[in-house]
Amino acid sequence: MRALIAGKGNLPLTLAAAMTKAGDPFRVYAPEGFAPDLPQVDSFRVEGLGKLLRDLRKAGVTEVCFAGAMQRPPVDMSRLHPLSLPLVPRLMKVMGQGDDRLLREVIAIFEEAGLRVRGAHEIAPELVLQAGPLTPRGPETTEVADADRAAAILAAVGPLDLGQGCVVAGGLCLAIETLPGTDAMLDFVARARPRLGRVGGGVLVKRAKPGQDLRIDMPTIGPDTVTAAAAAGLTGIAVEAGKVLVLNRSVLRERAKAAGIAVWAQP
Amino acid sequence: MRALIAGKGNLPLTLAAAMTKAGDPFRVYAPEGFAPDLPQVDSFRVEGLGKLLRDLRKAGVTEVCFAGAMQRPPVDMSRLHPLSLPLVPRLMKVMGQGDDRLLREVIAIFEEAGLRVRGAHEIAPELVLQAGPLTPRGPETTEVADADRAAAILAAVGPLDLGQGCVVAGGLCLAIETLPGTDAMLDFVARARPRLGRVGGGVLVKRAKPGQDLRIDMPTIGPDTVTAAAAAGLTGIAVEAGKVLVLNRSVLRERAKAAGIAVWAQP
Repeated sequence: MRALIAGKGNLPLTLAAAMTKAGDPFRVYAPEGFAPDLPQVDSFRVEGLGKLLRDLRKAGVTEVCFAGAMQRPPVDMSRLHPLSLPLVPRLMKVMGQGDDRLLREVIAIFEEAGLRVRGAHEIAPELVLQAGPLTPRGPETTEVADADRAAAILAAVGPLDLGQGCVVAGGLCLAIETLPGTDAMLDFVARARPRLGRVGGGVLVKRAKPGQDLRIDMPTIGPDTVTAAAAAGLTGIAVEAGKVLVLNRSVLRERAKAAGIAVWAQP
Repeated sequence: MRALIAGKGNLPLTLAAAMTKAGDPFRVYAPEGFAPDLPQVDSFRVEGLGKLLRDLRKAGVTEVCFAGAMQRPPVDMSRLHPLSLPLVPRLMKVMGQGDDRLLREVIAIFEEAGLRVRGAHEIAPELVLQAGPLTPRGPETTEVADADRAAAILAAVGPLDLGQGCVVAGGLCLAIETLPGTDAMLDFVARARPRLGRVGGGVLVKRAKPGQDLRIDMPTIGPDTVTAAAAAGLTGIAVEAGKVLVLNRSVLRERAKAAGIAVWAQP
């Protein structure tokens, strides 16, 4: 039995559909107050993490997949479940060390509890791209150059647990993704565009951080990414082959084609 | 005789005042269509760079200081001055390689023409801070930690010719400065703030790029930086000692004090 720990966005629905199609039995768990559009969702509180682990084992769950965006919730220590108590010092210790470190600790806790944590790309391999163009129009030479520079920038900031996204136009870096995420970054580029003078076009690159554990917080694009990229005046989107989830691929491709945006996977 | 090549902002006025006070003779040159609030400004076109170099020497100029923000102007090749022709291949070659590379080339061209290029901090050393607090309130431990992380991030991205600014809050990177500049970055943080949940406060760090030639594009803060930082919900501003221009220092200090923002110089 698998458990889907469902956050925001379409990914949990996409994975549920993929598992249903494959005939794999699964259950869905979501943070309290957040109800994904799926049947039979069990809710949990972050203060009840210890209890959740017990409930998962009781339900016969052996594999877990975290799917969808999860923001760090506020923690109410007065609501801490007794089974969560032993976990508090571990989580407190890594709390200020960036998302990567915190998420690695959460994975470790699940695996020590006997639950195998799987990545979305393992459950539905058809969600990532092989190297090459997705759109009929492949990238132009200048777009490949911009994408290469963005990839180099991401390689440099990755060890610092920073963004999976970067925008480069004509060799100039317009934005690096930080905590607020890809949409906020593209909104920033759209707002800055009138002040950029002769700097036109540009490419969004999404890549996993170097050495990133893809089982949590895997980089993702979807049709809305294309819309936001077009609004930011970009002409290309490059994702790392095999390591970036592409949601709603056919809609994304059509939208990119209509906007004149080349989408491709770089090695 | 010195020449001030004046861009936007208060810096050219501040330097003119400093040189007037010191009794140093100087002339002011500004790009065509842009008139700084100074007496006797000679204008030039970027297409006439070769002519400008000749005019400077004719006027007895031996030292040049670039001051104030200058955006890359659109170049109209049909207006190219004959004296600029030999410079075109050099400038074209570095055009796509980032601001740093382009600015180094411009400095080299001026120096090869026999003009010594000086930094604003050399003309008015009182514009940079020594290590330590500028405001009555010095930084708290968490603010120092955030500033240290921001400095580490800037050290990592510096070799890629990226930003002189970074915002970190509670150990989490909220923004890295890119082409659109510090104000655009702080506006981004202000807009993202409502979505950041429990991530409060934060520190803006401004530093020179590692190995940066301070004679062009020196990092700068002023009273408006404090206003923008306050609007972004930040509680601290840290600048690199000796390498960041602080304009209108007394107004900046009062404004920071009123906003509860600690301003200090880190080594």
